[in-house]
Amino acid sequence: MSLVFALLLVVAAPKPVDLVVTNATVVSMDAQRRVIPKGAVAVDAGRIVAVGAAPDLAAAYAGRETLDAAGGIVLPGLINAHTHAPMVLFRGVADDLKLMDWLQKYIFPAEAKNVTADFVRAGTGLAAVEMLRSGTTTFVDMYYFEDQVAEVAKAAGIRTVAGSTIIDFPAPDNKTRDDAIAYAERFIRRWKNDPLVVPAVAPHSTYIGSPETLRAADALSRREGVPLLIHLQESPDEQKTIRERYAKSSTEHLRDLGLLRKGVLGAHGVWLNASDRAILLQHEVGVAHCPQSNMKLASGAAPVREMLAEGLRLGLGTDGAASNNDLDMFEEMLTAALLSKHASQDPTAAPAPKVLEMATLGGARALGMEDRLGSLEPGKRADLIVVDVGAPRLHPMFDAVSHLVYAAKGADVRHSVIEGRVVMRDRRLLTLDEPAVLAESDRYREQVARSVGLK
Amino acid sequence: MSLVFALLLVVAAPKPVDLVVTNATVVSMDAQRRVIPKGAVAVDAGRIVAVGAAPDLAAAYAGRETLDAAGGIVLPGLINAHTHAPMVLFRGVADDLKLMDWLQKYIFPAEAKNVTADFVRAGTGLAAVEMLRSGTTTFVDMYYFEDQVAEVAKAAGIRTVAGSTIIDFPAPDNKTRDDAIAYAERFIRRWKNDPLVVPAVAPHSTYIGSPETLRAADALSRREGVPLLIHLQESPDEQKTIRERYAKSSTEHLRDLGLLRKGVLGAHGVWLNASDRAILLQHEVGVAHCPQSNMKLASGAAPVREMLAEGLRLGLGTDGAASNNDLDMFEEMLTAALLSKHASQDPTAAPAPKVLEMATLGGARALGMEDRLGSLEPGKRADLIVVDVGAPRLHPMFDAVSHLVYAAKGADVRHSVIEGRVVMRDRRLLTLDEPAVLAESDRYREQVARSVGLK
Repeated sequence: MSLVFALLLVVAAPKPVDLVVTNATVVSMDAQRRVIPKGAVAVDAGRIVAVGAAPDLAAAYAGRETLDAAGGIVLPGLINAHTHAPMVLFRGVADDLKLMDWLQKYIFPAEAKNVTADFVRAGTGLAAVEMLRSGTTTFVDMYYFEDQVAEVAKAAGIRTVAGSTIIDFPAPDNKTRDDAIAYAERFIRRWKNDPLVVPAVAPHSTYIGSPETLRAADALSRREGVPLLIHLQESPDEQKTIRERYAKSSTEHLRDLGLLRKGVLGAHGVWLNASDRAILLQHEVGVAHCPQSNMKLASGAAPVREMLAEGLRLGLGTDGAASNNDLDMFEEMLTAALLSKHASQDPTAAPAPKVLEMATLGGARALGMEDRLGSLEPGKRADLIVVDVGAPRLHPMFDAVSHLVYAAKGADVRHSVIEGRVVMRDRRLLTLDEPAVLAESDRYREQVARSVGLK
Repeated sequence: MSLVFALLLVVAAPKPVDLVVTNATVVSMDAQRRVIPKGAVAVDAGRIVAVGAAPDLAAAYAGRETLDAAGGIVLPGLINAHTHAPMVLFRGVADDLKLMDWLQKYIFPAEAKNVTADFVRAGTGLAAVEMLRSGTTTFVDMYYFEDQVAEVAKAAGIRTVAGSTIIDFPAPDNKTRDDAIAYAERFIRRWKNDPLVVPAVAPHSTYIGSPETLRAADALSRREGVPLLIHLQESPDEQKTIRERYAKSSTEHLRDLGLLRKGVLGAHGVWLNASDRAILLQHEVGVAHCPQSNMKLASGAAPVREMLAEGLRLGLGTDGAASNNDLDMFEEMLTAALLSKHASQDPTAAPAPKVLEMATLGGARALGMEDRLGSLEPGKRADLIVVDVGAPRLHPMFDAVSHLVYAAKGADVRHSVIEGRVVMRDRRLLTLDEPAVLAESDRYREQVARSVGLK
């Protein structure tokens, strides 16, 4: 009798928690890939505390705050595994050009003439608005003035792995490599214990980073215990240059320099062959697949079917908006599925569940952060989004995962929670003054246009 | 003095017209491809009467109704040059399968067990909602029970070129080919003079249409003076079958049967070689490029760069939602640009202005209807859309055409006008009861799921 009474007491006194998200189809991305039709998620102190059937969670937890998903889909927040956030201010400044024309006539001059700390602040604000609105809760960044990227991300409440660029020639933020290393070191120490900002070191690539630069970046990242981000085997040009210079692939070159390990993330990986992939797998290195950018610049198609089959740590990224031209990870998922099928001449390649994984748990694994991010499981950081299923293109719904990959768009995201904090509710951003951010980014329009000879 | 007075009178008395759309960047798609930064469009009796600078039009025309574009972009309504509208009810029922598994285990059984006149009515309603919301003002359809497609389109106020399918085996609407021909004839006579519905004959393809069937369809279409729609060289399987059967390509086969002429539209055209393309060009036959469907089914990449260079009548289509999985022409434009660049290993292939043309004037040319549709020019049907540029991904804006192709989505469409009638204002559909349409389509969910063994 007393035991039953105690159980009733437990039932009668649900535990108070910060937030309950309910009335949802929960796409958990847990080990069983559970999809819970009438599910809920309980969140406390920035962490997920429970995922399950809505009535069970209602009995066990009382949210101080509640998010009603209204029958929508709750899933882990999307991880944009490779971008250059401030480049949204160069969105559409030049399209449909040969890579070298695009870089040398537009992007490099535009960067040289425009990129300042304030530019980065304004651009990251615009990127944050765009990413939060379209379901990204973590973005992996590589750019200049990364302090400003981190400041804006923190204020916006969006998680970032922010890589301070280290490059062999004068950059907008640092004129020498030593300055860049010193900046990165200060940057890392400033942000290392932040709950939202993971500072990282970002040597640009093997083709504009000497072995000495790569080793110095590696030493810093190991000393501080932070991720290392690098462009990796993106284009046929890179393949040729590195082969000529070192008689090996970029992956082999990085291995021989001792850089490869968990926490290293290579962006693009278009030209990874079986041997390169085996090396990356062995060293637990992540890859960020960027299909829209690769198609737009005609860089090639990454071996996604093979990387999935081999179990590489494979995430998904938009790259910068200058070669995309937006930061919508839903569209990137769709393109990843379509490009892999096309390139492998196999419609079963990159099926929807695997593509959704690339955008969530795969991104977390690519960063070596799968203990904290990428799925809705107790103990993980509470980064989640709610997708509204009201749009006509989401009717009827046979399979939530199919819809997320093939029919949903960023505009369907209704609520967003990061580190347990509601950052967007009913499509209203709670952390940013959106009209001010848009107005500020528009103020850069004329200056940028002039800098590349546009009206 | 009197002449000046008369001029003042003209200035002082603007001509009353049905509608003026103003405060817009007008992307006209006229012969000069004019983009008018502060422009307006005047509409009367279903036709465009003037396009120009907003102050000039305000002086010359007084709209009985006004649409304020609020700084957005006005462009010709998009033409979806190939779809199967009612198949939205099969959206996501089966993905990531080999073509023959997909067709034989899912799509054909689902069609056999579900497709009735009522199913087509419900599905076309859902498709119409989706298309109007995402900027399509004309859709080219091939399906069964095409009377219902036409009825729903007319009620929704959306333009359609509706092709009644003629096929060699029993179909949901007609059990024999002769019944299908008789149905098509009645269908054409019923709709021939409708301002919104252009009836058409749709022999499915060369591989499931005997020469006799193709000739009968052709005779009907010539007798009634209506378009002929057909699938054309979509897949390697089709190539092989037709080569084995007739020792020629599908294009050569159709030419030899005497079918090819202006007003014939071939869907897909993935495997058209230089000789096929020369035949189509010579006969003024249109092609509907469907990149997302081609990629999803791994059918291949159409020779878009070549077709553009050669001047083929090239439109753009979504195909049915079972292989897409939505009907968003903005996304299709983006994919057309990306796939062409990737497939031709040339980032200058399919530049944004050419892709926008494919979705507007190109579709009109593909249908042989460029005298009436596809651009904002006096005398043409008043089919236009207004794209809201408020979304963060449309900031800043350097080039309206780049944004339309690379960054805008269907969800950005704010107003839609078809045949001079405002069918969507401020994202509210004025011709359809959207909640009722969605509820009705959802009622088919369980039946469709059961028919293919899903829960």
